[in-house]
Amino acid sequence: MTLIDGKATAATIKAEIKQEVERIVAAGGKRPHLAAILVGHDGGSETYVNNKVRACEECGFRSTLLRFEDDLSEAALLAEVDKLNANEDIDGFIVQLPLPRHIDEQKVIEAIDPKKDVDGFHPINVGRMAIGLPAFISATPKGILELLRRYQVKTSGKKCVILGRSNIVGKPMAQLMLQKSGGDATVVVCHSHSPQLAEECRSADIIIAAIGQPAFVKADMVKPGAVVIDVGTTRVPDASRARGFRLQGDVDFETVAPKCSLITPVPGGVGPMTICMLMQNTLEAAKRL
Amino acid sequence: MTLIDGKATAATIKAEIKQEVERIVAAGGKRPHLAAILVGHDGGSETYVNNKVRACEECGFRSTLLRFEDDLSEAALLAEVDKLNANEDIDGFIVQLPLPRHIDEQKVIEAIDPKKDVDGFHPINVGRMAIGLPAFISATPKGILELLRRYQVKTSGKKCVILGRSNIVGKPMAQLMLQKSGGDATVVVCHSHSPQLAEECRSADIIIAAIGQPAFVKADMVKPGAVVIDVGTTRVPDASRARGFRLQGDVDFETVAPKCSLITPVPGGVGPMTICMLMQNTLEAAKRL
Repeated sequence: MTLIDGKATAATIKAEIKQEVERIVAAGGKRPHLAAILVGHDGGSETYVNNKVRACEECGFRSTLLRFEDDLSEAALLAEVDKLNANEDIDGFIVQLPLPRHIDEQKVIEAIDPKKDVDGFHPINVGRMAIGLPAFISATPKGILELLRRYQVKTSGKKCVILGRSNIVGKPMAQLMLQKSGGDATVVVCHSHSPQLAEECRSADIIIAAIGQPAFVKADMVKPGAVVIDVGTTRVPDASRARGFRLQGDVDFETVAPKCSLITPVPGGVGPMTICMLMQNTLEAAKRL
Repeated sequence: MTLIDGKATAATIKAEIKQEVERIVAAGGKRPHLAAILVGHDGGSETYVNNKVRACEECGFRSTLLRFEDDLSEAALLAEVDKLNANEDIDGFIVQLPLPRHIDEQKVIEAIDPKKDVDGFHPINVGRMAIGLPAFISATPKGILELLRRYQVKTSGKKCVILGRSNIVGKPMAQLMLQKSGGDATVVVCHSHSPQLAEECRSADIIIAAIGQPAFVKADMVKPGAVVIDVGTTRVPDASRARGFRLQGDVDFETVAPKCSLITPVPGGVGPMTICMLMQNTLEAAKRL
């Protein structure tokens, strides 16, 4: 069994990005510049945004963090989005989700210029990706495909079972794994209403678990030699940790890992790749402009 | 075995649409108006466009057919698209595909105002559909879902195997069958690079064949009692027909039908629903404006 080291892979990719950035800058080009809008003080969001700012530094990008209190009106937020759309120095930007309840997230996402939508959440990017056209692909599914590639997992003609049908992981993952230029796999999507879920998993060459249920995938659901990618990151109480919790994936790692050819740990698997792919998208945005 | 009668279902739906249109008009509302652009003289395209114009009449719509020779420049076509976008009397329009080779189809599709894109081919409609937002859904997958509903086929929790991954049938069909508000099924997509295709079919409750290979699905690939939807329409030579060919589906109907609980014939199954769903989209476009 080989552990897929997302942290090390992400570090490698960030170093590659930094090298490319320095080449671009040395040739007189522009240093990529990512902006992030953070509304309010959600603990998780603060951490994510800080990690993104740090990743920008590691990649040699400029970054700008715009912070607002959670009483910011929707109109005011849309005006900030417009300013970033118009700001030629900003190559790409994200609006950290979730937003306060009084703001319509979808409206904000659709206000972002698709050419600067490095999160890949704008419907036009979602649609272009579905059709197989060049598009910003959202970071988690893109990161998983990149991990599979870097670990030389053969996907073409393989049976890939995806657990979960969320807009940000399950659905785009299915599309990427399906496309000839992507995974070229036979794709199965199972979810909470799939009575055949365990059976489908047992015949899978690759399982991608993004169902948000801690330790849901058990050893008896996995074929010997399967590749297992765990997208779950649920906080479960753990008195032995200083923070009082630990991150638990969707896979029961202890029992599943011995059966796998390759498996991602949680944390340190898919997670580190996500921010890394946001950096990749930002570099692409900068190169396109 | 029950035959799914697409022709009769389409006739019913068109009658329902016409009723609604007459209600709208009687209440002082606007009669829906569909325009179609046809470039060149492709035989298939002529037939399709004529059928669409006839369906408009059946539904009580106005229709406008704009014909151009196949030396029309891309710029001139884009100008026509712009005119239809701006024409307030036109609720929705289509550009009949395929277009002559010197015209970039994707560019034309993306030039259509998404609010008038009743074919549902614009990436923003593709993306909105993928995310589960209101959108124009392309006619063939929408028509299949409607057939399943009208024949009261239970899809939730069922295993649905889709053969083919085209942008206009396989991929959007997979998304519709997957969504909670759609089929809510366990969805499998198989294609030319799927070694497990026959095996997957054998465990399917519902098979949707859109692979473009005449009589590809054989009896030994179908579970007794399965529901089989045949999207294929390949012209195969047939000396016994006046036209010299007949339409052959992707399913070997003679041997497969006896095993099914429900099956669509070719022709007369999915085909008639497609134009009917274009009418439905046009009605929706008219109501939205």
